[in-house]
Amino acid sequence: MTGPPEGAAGGMGEFALIGRLRRKLAASAGPDIVVGNGDDAAVVEAGEGRCWVMTCDVQVQGVHFPEGASGISVGQKALAVNASDVAAMGGTPRYALISLGVRADTPVAFLDEVYEGINARAGRWGVAVLGGNVSRTEGPFFIDIFMVGTVERDRLLLRSGARLGDQILVTGFLGDAAAGLHLLGHPEAKVRDEARTALIYAQLRPTARVEEGKAVAALKKATAMMDLSDGLAGDLGHLCEASGVGAVVWEQELPISPAALELAAAARLRPEEWALYGGEDYQLLLTAPVEAVPALQKAVREAGALPLTPIGEIVPAGQGMRLKRGEDLLPLRAGGWDHLKDK
Amino acid sequence: MTGPPEGAAGGMGEFALIGRLRRKLAASAGPDIVVGNGDDAAVVEAGEGRCWVMTCDVQVQGVHFPEGASGISVGQKALAVNASDVAAMGGTPRYALISLGVRADTPVAFLDEVYEGINARAGRWGVAVLGGNVSRTEGPFFIDIFMVGTVERDRLLLRSGARLGDQILVTGFLGDAAAGLHLLGHPEAKVRDEARTALIYAQLRPTARVEEGKAVAALKKATAMMDLSDGLAGDLGHLCEASGVGAVVWEQELPISPAALELAAAARLRPEEWALYGGEDYQLLLTAPVEAVPALQKAVREAGALPLTPIGEIVPAGQGMRLKRGEDLLPLRAGGWDHLKDK
Repeated sequence: MTGPPEGAAGGMGEFALIGRLRRKLAASAGPDIVVGNGDDAAVVEAGEGRCWVMTCDVQVQGVHFPEGASGISVGQKALAVNASDVAAMGGTPRYALISLGVRADTPVAFLDEVYEGINARAGRWGVAVLGGNVSRTEGPFFIDIFMVGTVERDRLLLRSGARLGDQILVTGFLGDAAAGLHLLGHPEAKVRDEARTALIYAQLRPTARVEEGKAVAALKKATAMMDLSDGLAGDLGHLCEASGVGAVVWEQELPISPAALELAAAARLRPEEWALYGGEDYQLLLTAPVEAVPALQKAVREAGALPLTPIGEIVPAGQGMRLKRGEDLLPLRAGGWDHLKDK
Repeated sequence: MTGPPEGAAGGMGEFALIGRLRRKLAASAGPDIVVGNGDDAAVVEAGEGRCWVMTCDVQVQGVHFPEGASGISVGQKALAVNASDVAAMGGTPRYALISLGVRADTPVAFLDEVYEGINARAGRWGVAVLGGNVSRTEGPFFIDIFMVGTVERDRLLLRSGARLGDQILVTGFLGDAAAGLHLLGHPEAKVRDEARTALIYAQLRPTARVEEGKAVAALKKATAMMDLSDGLAGDLGHLCEASGVGAVVWEQELPISPAALELAAAARLRPEEWALYGGEDYQLLLTAPVEAVPALQKAVREAGALPLTPIGEIVPAGQGMRLKRGEDLLPLRAGGWDHLKDK
């Protein structure tokens, strides 16, 4: 394979391309615009101390989910990844619109399932699905969901608020989705059925930390928040850049599930790699002063029975991003998934 | 070609499929939801007598625009078709998010142009483009835009308000976009350069009747409104169904541009066919009592120098949709474009 021709999008990484296109946007300033480009979602003032949070995310067959994924998984995931962006701002997901790109040979039964998956997640979070549109495509099936949420202005959490000395925290486990992807590619790996199911579902049917995000926002003690879609190292890099800070991640504190540990042992892989660089966990990454951590942990546990684990601390920007392994401080590359770049 | 396999989406028309998927949606009722599915856009209450209008529309290369269309045309059209949906409710387009499906071999220069086209239209209407996302695809390039607008609750215009005896009116000319499509397929047709340019631009770079829609809504005299995206016959059918009425269209009153007349004469075609069944004109279709028509015509002319032409009247539902040609009343089939169905 010779790679894309010169000047083609495939020659740029996803983040480079997004950065380029973002710079192409006319500056969107206005008294009503709280957050334009560059966070998990856009935020505008809606009056009465309330903001509207808006986001969209497209999922393409063969890129974001495998050809064989069930319609239910596809629908659930498509709704969840958008709800996750709203949750990452501390918001409540409210309304969704759906665009579908449908092939002539797409089974109608698959589309029915996609809507079942959407409805299952929407019902759980109280999201009203208000329509959308369908187009024919000769390429792979795709689904693009647009979600609007609401958040009180004084509970809004951005990527840009992290402060020196803050602890870095994550909800739930990291790396399960990447472990599930590994398992899809290596079905012969020897793990118990419960672990197999848990990891593959983490990859194909991720959920969103909606209740946890709202609980964190309601406490008004966190300084920054985002969701983990591209992998901890990459996403933390975005948070540090937006906040103008650096970070140290404590490798031995990374919360890794028993299922991922089991697979890693069977496959002789380091599960920390999944936790650091695997994408699509859709957990929440937040920062907060040390003294606020116990109250945040209690709030997250009560909201969704999930752990909230301190995994590092915010340091001056000049120190960059580093990984503490034992007594060593290693450079932490801000890699992460890149759906666009030719591999 | 044997057609799509049994149970495949290609075996259903676009409207049948949309209807099926709409019924799959969990009922989205709530005190805040003014319009769920089934109009040009969804509408929710935003407090203080104001509503938010939300819509999305995906454009796929090779389906909604030809392979050779410039990025500027693609960007302009993508923004315009969404603004048209907001305008059709009497709303003001405010915010947009953009999802792109990009091939590895898509030229970056093409993407730059798409954003130039988006910015040109957004700037004209004061729309803030607040970001979006980019995905890789191996299929045709696509662009999906989500747009949010606002409208005062008491100015909101739906498809469902047409009443017996109302006149049926349209802004601008009908059939130019279809004439442009014909011209793209038959470039040898002998028409003057100005006519050629006007018709091809109507197809590739339609605009939206934003100012006209706001002017109509501000007058509070129209009873129903929608935009013309699928062709007059099809769209009027949707309006009649939503309003529980029938319609008579006066063929000789259809406003057809000099350019379309010129091409029709050269190609020996009836331009009324383009006006009735050609899609993508993105003009506004509205109904109003006869006595309100002069004031509406004045308002539309002042907003955008466009004519507002009476083209028929609302009749009882039992009479269905008919076309008055001379002294004859012919059945008017609610056809229109269907992007999905195999042709």
